[in-house]
Amino acid sequence: MNIISRPTPESAETMAVTSGPLPASRKIHVPGTLHPEVQVAMREIEVAGGKEPAVRVYDTSGPYTDPAITTDIRKGLAPLRTPWIKARGDVEEIAGRVSRPEDDGLAPGEVSTVPVFDRAGRKPLRAKAGKAVTQLAYARAGIITPEMEYIAVRENMGRAKAFAKVSDGESFGASIPEYVTAEFVRDEIARGRAIIPSNINHPEAEPMIIGRNFLVKINANIGNSIVTSAVAEEVDKLVWAIRWGADNVMDLSTGRNIHTIREWIIRNSPVPIGTVPIYQALEKVNGKAEDLTWEIYRDTLIEQAEQGVDYFTIHAGVRLAYIPLTAKRVTGIVSRGGSIMAKWCLAHHKENFLYTHFDEICDIMRAYDVSFSLGDGLRPGSIADANDAAQFAELDTLGELTKIAWKKDVQVMIEGPGHVPMHKIKVNMDKQLAVCGEAPFYTLGPLTTDIAPGYDHITSGIGAAMIGWFGTAMLCYVTPKEHLGLPDRDDVKVGVITYKIAAHAADLAKGHPGAQMRDDALSKARFEFRWRDQFNLSLDPETAEDFHDQTLPAEGAKVAHFCSMCGPKFCSMKISQEVREYAEKGMAEMSATFRETGAELYKVEPVSSDPRAKFEMP
Amino acid sequence: MNIISRPTPESAETMAVTSGPLPASRKIHVPGTLHPEVQVAMREIEVAGGKEPAVRVYDTSGPYTDPAITTDIRKGLAPLRTPWIKARGDVEEIAGRVSRPEDDGLAPGEVSTVPVFDRAGRKPLRAKAGKAVTQLAYARAGIITPEMEYIAVRENMGRAKAFAKVSDGESFGASIPEYVTAEFVRDEIARGRAIIPSNINHPEAEPMIIGRNFLVKINANIGNSIVTSAVAEEVDKLVWAIRWGADNVMDLSTGRNIHTIREWIIRNSPVPIGTVPIYQALEKVNGKAEDLTWEIYRDTLIEQAEQGVDYFTIHAGVRLAYIPLTAKRVTGIVSRGGSIMAKWCLAHHKENFLYTHFDEICDIMRAYDVSFSLGDGLRPGSIADANDAAQFAELDTLGELTKIAWKKDVQVMIEGPGHVPMHKIKVNMDKQLAVCGEAPFYTLGPLTTDIAPGYDHITSGIGAAMIGWFGTAMLCYVTPKEHLGLPDRDDVKVGVITYKIAAHAADLAKGHPGAQMRDDALSKARFEFRWRDQFNLSLDPETAEDFHDQTLPAEGAKVAHFCSMCGPKFCSMKISQEVREYAEKGMAEMSATFRETGAELYKVEPVSSDPRAKFEMP
Repeated sequence: MNIISRPTPESAETMAVTSGPLPASRKIHVPGTLHPEVQVAMREIEVAGGKEPAVRVYDTSGPYTDPAITTDIRKGLAPLRTPWIKARGDVEEIAGRVSRPEDDGLAPGEVSTVPVFDRAGRKPLRAKAGKAVTQLAYARAGIITPEMEYIAVRENMGRAKAFAKVSDGESFGASIPEYVTAEFVRDEIARGRAIIPSNINHPEAEPMIIGRNFLVKINANIGNSIVTSAVAEEVDKLVWAIRWGADNVMDLSTGRNIHTIREWIIRNSPVPIGTVPIYQALEKVNGKAEDLTWEIYRDTLIEQAEQGVDYFTIHAGVRLAYIPLTAKRVTGIVSRGGSIMAKWCLAHHKENFLYTHFDEICDIMRAYDVSFSLGDGLRPGSIADANDAAQFAELDTLGELTKIAWKKDVQVMIEGPGHVPMHKIKVNMDKQLAVCGEAPFYTLGPLTTDIAPGYDHITSGIGAAMIGWFGTAMLCYVTPKEHLGLPDRDDVKVGVITYKIAAHAADLAKGHPGAQMRDDALSKARFEFRWRDQFNLSLDPETAEDFHDQTLPAEGAKVAHFCSMCGPKFCSMKISQEVREYAEKGMAEMSATFRETGAELYKVEPVSSDPRAKFEMP
Repeated sequence: MNIISRPTPESAETMAVTSGPLPASRKIHVPGTLHPEVQVAMREIEVAGGKEPAVRVYDTSGPYTDPAITTDIRKGLAPLRTPWIKARGDVEEIAGRVSRPEDDGLAPGEVSTVPVFDRAGRKPLRAKAGKAVTQLAYARAGIITPEMEYIAVRENMGRAKAFAKVSDGESFGASIPEYVTAEFVRDEIARGRAIIPSNINHPEAEPMIIGRNFLVKINANIGNSIVTSAVAEEVDKLVWAIRWGADNVMDLSTGRNIHTIREWIIRNSPVPIGTVPIYQALEKVNGKAEDLTWEIYRDTLIEQAEQGVDYFTIHAGVRLAYIPLTAKRVTGIVSRGGSIMAKWCLAHHKENFLYTHFDEICDIMRAYDVSFSLGDGLRPGSIADANDAAQFAELDTLGELTKIAWKKDVQVMIEGPGHVPMHKIKVNMDKQLAVCGEAPFYTLGPLTTDIAPGYDHITSGIGAAMIGWFGTAMLCYVTPKEHLGLPDRDDVKVGVITYKIAAHAADLAKGHPGAQMRDDALSKARFEFRWRDQFNLSLDPETAEDFHDQTLPAEGAKVAHFCSMCGPKFCSMKISQEVREYAEKGMAEMSATFRETGAELYKVEPVSSDPRAKFEMP
């Protein structure tokens, strides 16, 4: 063990990440009632300098945007949920697994270049023998946890009660309530229709829910594949993604030091963290899929569960018998985890060990409340392969595994495709609901065409909005670099904003109560030429202002009754306002005339020439 | 008249626009059979150095990407259609309207800073007295014009006959043929279900069709609102937009010199050009909507028809009685033309003169074959205003006007919204088909949420893909600068590519035969690590290659079996190829074993531990 010779964390400046509030925004905290200690963080955007109602929005950014809190990634975030977890009396501190060099992809004796996060003596928690510490187990027992109440308040976005306005959305059979109560959250969890990813070893996370009857969520992937980034850079990727609205983050790192970097990420993350444990397991056998064993995999699950990973993608549905179904595909198996397991199955000519050991996997996950994200290892990687026999065979198996997990009180969501043309999207949702007993669906896009590498955030944003509308609970983002390379900071932001658009468009179409408030406030600001409000209410105030200022940078233009798109003479909004004034003034005058003459409602004047006169060539 | 004191066009270098073929692409020409003089331009992309079949794609870029043709914007493009137009014997040369300073927004005596395009003596054409020279008139008379055959060949993308593959799309009642014949084109035109925008004074345009049973088309808007750009810059905007796939371009200029710049644009455009004549008419009355008259507007229509504008947006459906319906809207009237006409109506308290003079407008348009794009002046500008009474009242009127235009043999398409949440999109399409007798629908987006200024190409690309699938024939692009400012060159490209994605996703979903060929070729290249082919087959080869090279710039990486996204060990495509080899080798081995043992199909081996053994804490 060479940990003592590792570098120590650098200064606070060097370890700084992006922080500070978004424009015109302040952090507010709305308390629970069943659990008064619950304080739900939200963002409130000031409008018209306070003359219009402020707009409350769902806030994933955590303490990093709260000026009242000084964050320091060397210390990690405050463990918000620890008192709630301990109060339940069903967990115990354990010594935990001892970290080994191979956890970081290092050879025995090799020295890591990455500093270790200082846990300040905090030990991992695990369920006491025989206890299930999952939110599903509590929900089934009729317990409304603080996590559930946190979510109820959060999903209402601070509304004290239901809107009077009746929604006109089309939700395709979902049961979206006008107002979310904590009991509703409990019931949805108990029915398996929603999950709260909430490992007891990740108390820093602010509770959030993934389910068809709640706001549509998005996931951002981070992680590095070649070179090891500095720790602060990796944590900043996370902070950057949640700043723009990522509800969940998956750490898909496959390089070195992944154990150590994961610790830094989790300790500093206010959102649930997901992983694909097979990636790390494969590193431990030097990338040879055929050398993977159940023992190495199981040990990796425990390693990550003790660190606090909230959900695991597990490709247990890639069964030996399904692999030949992919042989004639245009793009074969495009899931990394799926292809690893397929290779293992073929090399040994044995059934997938994730399938054969599924019960044991459940037993590990229930002891930490790690949720399943049952991986779609056979998802289609091209339009040609969409909705084929391999894909749907695997989905059937995921449905079978869902029922096993539920028996064990483990929370489950199901991963979905991939590349699917628009007319084949809805059947994916319908089948998933039927086969997996309404467990939440979590899809990657889907991409609606293959022909636009460099723009796959858009090809997939189209599919994501649609499948979100149809009922998918969480959308995994795709960045512009998809298929081409590793996303950088700008790509992550574009991916997140694109998926916030897709999720919000889905919320509007489903008729989620309150979703349209922000649209209405922004549009009203637009009509009234409140440019600052238009920027501040947008998903990306910086870009909106930058685009506006490229042609009209002067501060005076921020109150101008036009933009450079049409110029002052041609601005429809300006003319339309004049029309409104005219109409009001005109109506008053007409009314006076009407009273005077006591005659027709509309004064008919002869037009200057016969309106239907034959056109004569000039 | 100060035209003689204007500057003369500059040198060929100064007047150069973007030209040259796209990577690995060559221009091919496929001949007609009924009209052998018809030579349909297409782009053919070489694949795998010729070892895979080349892929033919629809090509809007005109001679600018043909190395065999030297373009010079001072001379304009060759007048491809002139022999076809003259051969019909129903047009005559006219002296034409004399251009006046006010056509360019100049005061009498003011000198323009923009050079005049040299028409080399070419005079405007007009129908002989009593003749209708529209494609609709010919189609109704049973005539298959060269334009119609050009389109048949073009829509088939060079396929000699129908594909064997049966499409599995969902076209919502459209009648998409497996193979497009010239007679089918004629019939669709005769039924009013499609239009060929083809002013007899724009013979440079390559014929294209807009209709529900053909490939979905896109329109790009260009034009300047504040300062006058140099002529070459304006023409380059056009050439740039069509290089990336714009099927039509609208010149929405509202500044000075618009008459002169429009001439440059039309003479150099291989795609149909549309305008909104009320913009220029308003310039002629110094921006005062209430000063507009029918006479000024009529004169502007003739001015633009003689220049060769292929379709006019005309807001004849903004009737006086509908204006009060917009008073309670969040964003009032957001169409520029709509707001101008509303103001005129209210100022005079009279019916819209475009409505009262509609017959005369038809008579002008039939004399040049200018198509109507009946404007949706009351389209919703926010989610809150979608599908309201004002919008649908206007749509009813557009249906009424469609029938009048058809009686006059004038081609018609109908403009549609706007801002519409996903669940309210389809009813727009359904109503339009019903009310407007299946005349082609031409929509702006629609934007599916208001909250993302800076990303409205994406909020609208979602809606555009969906409404294209439902049956919209042409999608008007939205750029990232929408609502914020005037798009620059990069914005135009992003807008066009986004809308090509939407249109292509719609073609796939409708089941357009042949649409998937390009997806399949690209995905096959992706699976086989032919990086160059993957770039070349994409909608934007430059961006795809640039993104790839940001992390792996070496030329060797173009044949590498991985990219930086996952790295060599984790590339699913690589592992999947190994799986395929394994499967083939494995199957052969298994087969040998099977023959030797004469036993079970699958060799069952005991797993290393009981697969469902109880998990025990380590």
